[in-house]
Amino acid sequence: MIKMSFFSREHTLHKSPPKQAVDANPAVSPRDHARARRVALVGFGTVGRAVAKILCERKDKDEDKDGDSLLRLTHICNRNFERKKQPWVPNTVIWTDDFRAVLNSDADIIIELIGGLTPAEELVRSALNAGKSVVTANKQLIARHGPDLLQLASANGCRLEFGASVAGGVPVLPALRTGLSGDRLHGIAGILNGTCNYILSRIETDRIPFSEALEEAQARGYAEADASEDLDGGDARAKLSILALAGLQLRVSPADIRARTIRAIEAFDFDYSAELGCTIRQISRADLKQTTLFADVGPSLVPASSPFGRVQKNLNLVLTSGEYGGDVAFLGAGAGGDPTAVAVVSDLMFIAESPLAGARPHRPLQLASPAISCDFETPWYLRFVVKDQPGIIARLAAILSAHQLNIDAILQKPGFEKSALPFVITLEPCRDAQLHPALQEMSALPFALKPCLCLPILR
Amino acid sequence: MIKMSFFSREHTLHKSPPKQAVDANPAVSPRDHARARRVALVGFGTVGRAVAKILCERKDKDEDKDGDSLLRLTHICNRNFERKKQPWVPNTVIWTDDFRAVLNSDADIIIELIGGLTPAEELVRSALNAGKSVVTANKQLIARHGPDLLQLASANGCRLEFGASVAGGVPVLPALRTGLSGDRLHGIAGILNGTCNYILSRIETDRIPFSEALEEAQARGYAEADASEDLDGGDARAKLSILALAGLQLRVSPADIRARTIRAIEAFDFDYSAELGCTIRQISRADLKQTTLFADVGPSLVPASSPFGRVQKNLNLVLTSGEYGGDVAFLGAGAGGDPTAVAVVSDLMFIAESPLAGARPHRPLQLASPAISCDFETPWYLRFVVKDQPGIIARLAAILSAHQLNIDAILQKPGFEKSALPFVITLEPCRDAQLHPALQEMSALPFALKPCLCLPILR
Repeated sequence: MIKMSFFSREHTLHKSPPKQAVDANPAVSPRDHARARRVALVGFGTVGRAVAKILCERKDKDEDKDGDSLLRLTHICNRNFERKKQPWVPNTVIWTDDFRAVLNSDADIIIELIGGLTPAEELVRSALNAGKSVVTANKQLIARHGPDLLQLASANGCRLEFGASVAGGVPVLPALRTGLSGDRLHGIAGILNGTCNYILSRIETDRIPFSEALEEAQARGYAEADASEDLDGGDARAKLSILALAGLQLRVSPADIRARTIRAIEAFDFDYSAELGCTIRQISRADLKQTTLFADVGPSLVPASSPFGRVQKNLNLVLTSGEYGGDVAFLGAGAGGDPTAVAVVSDLMFIAESPLAGARPHRPLQLASPAISCDFETPWYLRFVVKDQPGIIARLAAILSAHQLNIDAILQKPGFEKSALPFVITLEPCRDAQLHPALQEMSALPFALKPCLCLPILR
Repeated sequence: MIKMSFFSREHTLHKSPPKQAVDANPAVSPRDHARARRVALVGFGTVGRAVAKILCERKDKDEDKDGDSLLRLTHICNRNFERKKQPWVPNTVIWTDDFRAVLNSDADIIIELIGGLTPAEELVRSALNAGKSVVTANKQLIARHGPDLLQLASANGCRLEFGASVAGGVPVLPALRTGLSGDRLHGIAGILNGTCNYILSRIETDRIPFSEALEEAQARGYAEADASEDLDGGDARAKLSILALAGLQLRVSPADIRARTIRAIEAFDFDYSAELGCTIRQISRADLKQTTLFADVGPSLVPASSPFGRVQKNLNLVLTSGEYGGDVAFLGAGAGGDPTAVAVVSDLMFIAESPLAGARPHRPLQLASPAISCDFETPWYLRFVVKDQPGIIARLAAILSAHQLNIDAILQKPGFEKSALPFVITLEPCRDAQLHPALQEMSALPFALKPCLCLPILR
């Protein structure tokens, strides 16, 4: 039964597998009847296992009148595969630890799920050069080399699909490729990192310290031992650059997108944000204006009642803005073996429903390379932690005034120690570049116990 | 700039067309380079005009190195076309009122935007029989004849796409076709009719009478003079049957889906719903359990804080539930010329990126025909309007008890006239069929001024 409250804090993915005798099979779009696509899986971790499971479970449901399945798993390639073998994998599947065996096999499509750049990049290039289509969930690979690899696929008459590389089970990349391709998008924003969202929404809910929320996320398997990629925005900006590629047709190096860490967020920041009707989320956003892409990843204030403010736990939300279609939002499980595997298998089916590789020449991929800027104009939340003494506000106000920055509000909640007093100044909209020198001056003042935490306020 | 609060009551589509010199062109997926697809447009109303506009505006952006555009508008077919001509349509486009001229032309794809069954069905069949692919936004046509027309397209080696027929600019059908095809869906629910949602959310916001909200919707162009199709659920159940086709691979006649009207909803129903933490929306839902599809369209109580409860104005929300990927939600503009046109043009591009029609045989479409039931088990909201007198609750409670129905709560808010007193009884979960005889008995009681209003409470 569908739950209306799936959005809520109690949300868990309800795996409800009632045996569906009716659930026949293929998608509605017409399919190539010629023969099944042979699929080789490289990387048998959490996602790889889930992909294999779906392929094996759907096999019997997916046969046409001739007993032909649309997708046939032929190889599983992993180091120490003997330890990985599963009883539910049919005997017809070849287990190997040698990628060359896969490359030299008759597999039509190779699924790359080993992650990282080395040796994944090499493997994907050899597969494409061998005329085999590739499906990957590898965000770092696509973020850095996506445009080149797409070109390579095109030159070899085969396909590269990466629907699982952003937001796992949320079909935003497929929607950009098909349902929104008729629009002219100019903006994309999202909660793209489930780890950050888990941590921030946990601090929000119970006002626990950052370190406790991080430990909890690690204990639950939502964060790795070294969570830097998540916390400091590396993961999200890779995803944002993929969204810019797929949705805005832009070539954006993830390193060119500013990423701000969430490590400085404290429980009291949620108290102050609440005073402003807001909460804090890691927001990734890209806005195309003329030839400049304004892009930023990092903790931001968003209205508590907005879709962004209401995303709890490790869910993902992506919002696209188009000239014709306006705003469209996508919400769902951003990670996890099963949801990510759905994206991988959907890509496989998308390729399988297309003509055999090599059948036709392809239009060359045309991408623009915009200037990248983080100089958004926005109101700001400035949070100070000071050793309390007379004249602090006056000093800060003088610096802000000298930089032509207008104070919107000053918030100081009771109940904090005078020796480490947090308080907040909000500013009227100004550009990032205009604010930066003032921030440096203020953080250097003798009463400042920490650098000023500066968050954009998004309305 | 992306608005975080796009969900809110103030939401309006922000058409922000900054000239985007960077916004190059084609989508990321590789394309057929052979030649442009010739596109004929039949029906030049609001959506037709918006489609033509996008095609004409994107033409210059969409050329490859040989100056070839992916899509080329060749014909516009409409009655009295002389009155319809637009200065921005290039001279190369042929205007006609004769569909046979379009059918006999070299157009590859025909866009059907005349709506209704006659003569649209005939036109679409002739186009497919002539080997031309068809893109349509016609929900009644697809709901009633979608499976047959898909079969016909397949038999003729061409394509039928209908992404615009449900939820306009929200790419849920494309996502079902590509990004979610790897999952095994078992449930779909949605706010699929913008007119009903406009009316209900207006009553909710200002507690205006139903009739006033309807008049307002008509004045704003959100509702037609005869709004029966919207209010009584005919429109939404057609869309639900299309979602069942595309997402669950089921053949469901819209007439087999129970549709309940929203006409009986009064402002005080929102007061009572609020007591239960709920609001009221027209919800369309389909749940597949074994070989039975449980389906229902009509006003329902949903948690006020749920995504469904928070959808305002004429936005649409669709939620899919899958065995592997869990819940995914899609939110956006469900109607309007421009958003619907995005869906149409996206379908055109999806076809244009595929091989030329007729190039390959197709796998036959396999659909199941489930039993359809509206006998959901759910808690219920029963609202009575009575001429107050002693013993009413006792009479009602006796009837409910005789039918083995358990009362959860009795709500009676102050401030109403005793001569027409509305009050509410909520029931613990029971099946629709179990409740029905009790409802009939209760509505026939002499103090009942109106039939009991009975709404499911969805959590």
